Amino acid sequence: MVHNADAFDPAFRSELTRLLTWRRDVRHFLGRPLPEGALARLVGLAALAPSVGLSQPWRFVSVEAPERRAAIRAEFARCNAEALAAEPRERQALYARLKLEGLDQAPVHLAVFADPSTPQGHGLGRRTMPEALAYSVVMAVHTLWLAARAEGIGMGWVSILDPARVAAVLDVPDAWQFIGYLCLGYPADEHEVPELERRGWERRARQTLLSR
Amino acid sequence: MVHNADAFDPAFRSELTRLLTWRRDVRHFLGRPLPEGALARLVGLAALAPSVGLSQPWRFVSVEAPERRAAIRAEFARCNAEALAAEPRERQALYARLKLEGLDQAPVHLAVFADPSTPQGHGLGRRTMPEALAYSVVMAVHTLWLAARAEGIGMGWVSILDPARVAAVLDVPDAWQFIGYLCLGYPADEHEVPELERRGWERRARQTLLSR
Repeated sequence: MVHNADAFDPAFRSELTRLLTWRRDVRHFLGRPLPEGALARLVGLAALAPSVGLSQPWRFVSVEAPERRAAIRAEFARCNAEALAAEPRERQALYARLKLEGLDQAPVHLAVFADPSTPQGHGLGRRTMPEALAYSVVMAVHTLWLAARAEGIGMGWVSILDPARVAAVLDVPDAWQFIGYLCLGYPADEHEVPELERRGWERRARQTLLSR
Repeated sequence: MVHNADAFDPAFRSELTRLLTWRRDVRHFLGRPLPEGALARLVGLAALAPSVGLSQPWRFVSVEAPERRAAIRAEFARCNAEALAAEPRERQALYARLKLEGLDQAPVHLAVFADPSTPQGHGLGRRTMPEALAYSVVMAVHTLWLAARAEGIGMGWVSILDPARVAAVLDVPDAWQFIGYLCLGYPADEHEVPELERRGWERRARQTLLSR
């Protein structure tokens, strides 16, 4: 069966590199909704991600109720105001100009959790590194991100939230661990350069490889 | 610039789905080395991954010294023996038959760390969720995994290790957080179905999407 998996040609690899290059964390969305069935299909692709012990511990919650979305926006505003206040004085103006989420415009809000109580996987690979469970969920999120981008759908990951408050707002099982809050929709603009770099927050560094 | 990023055609999306489907956690490698420059190129692609605050906190360490590789193999053997002993009696024989790593055969050993002490990103997005830093590194690992697979190179992630011991064996800065130990090389066989499923450890579940 080797030929089956090996047959990724140079044109595909070149397009994959372009996908990785253009992925972006999107914070400016057009309001128009995703096509019918798109979110379920993307979540299905995300479930192809690797998971420790084949535990598939990801739990996806589509946040649709307007009052819950409003509560999440309020939580972001509160956490972001605290983060701004904690910035060194000389960076506060720059921080205040950043747009760090697209919660107002994105047609899809998707909260993602890990379920450490799952029996699936029988605990394999989690004994010395229980965090491998959360890492599996992160790879599912990243899979969804790439699959969405390949369809022209942008995604932004909001981490400026209090995990306990998000879990309370969304009324999920106590055992679940909040991983991230995702905004999905069609991007209002496209850039090869990350927004934080364009706005002068930070520049990308050259990658090095150490050896031992 | 919209057309630039939007232009992923159906053929590419179909190939991307095939890549996600065939990725696999590889534990059986051919001994032959990777092409000259392949590892550095893959690490360069991994650095296109998203990172919180554009912090790029990933640190890649190619483990080459035979004595360090041997020490890692010994650490795996120790941790795996403990995991076997901790299994319920009725699953011990099944666990003992699993092959959970390809440390002996893989031509490349790559240890991956997060550096929470990095000034890059100025702490953005890490205040309420400091774990976002490790999650960024996990997305870089997943990027590397997909990019490698697209070149016919297989990867396996070893999590049955003690993070503190790995850091000691590899003599990395104290602040670094161990994320994962990766084996890379050409796969000895190819399967669409995960090895843990083929060996009867666990089956993949159907993915559901909740709403709130």
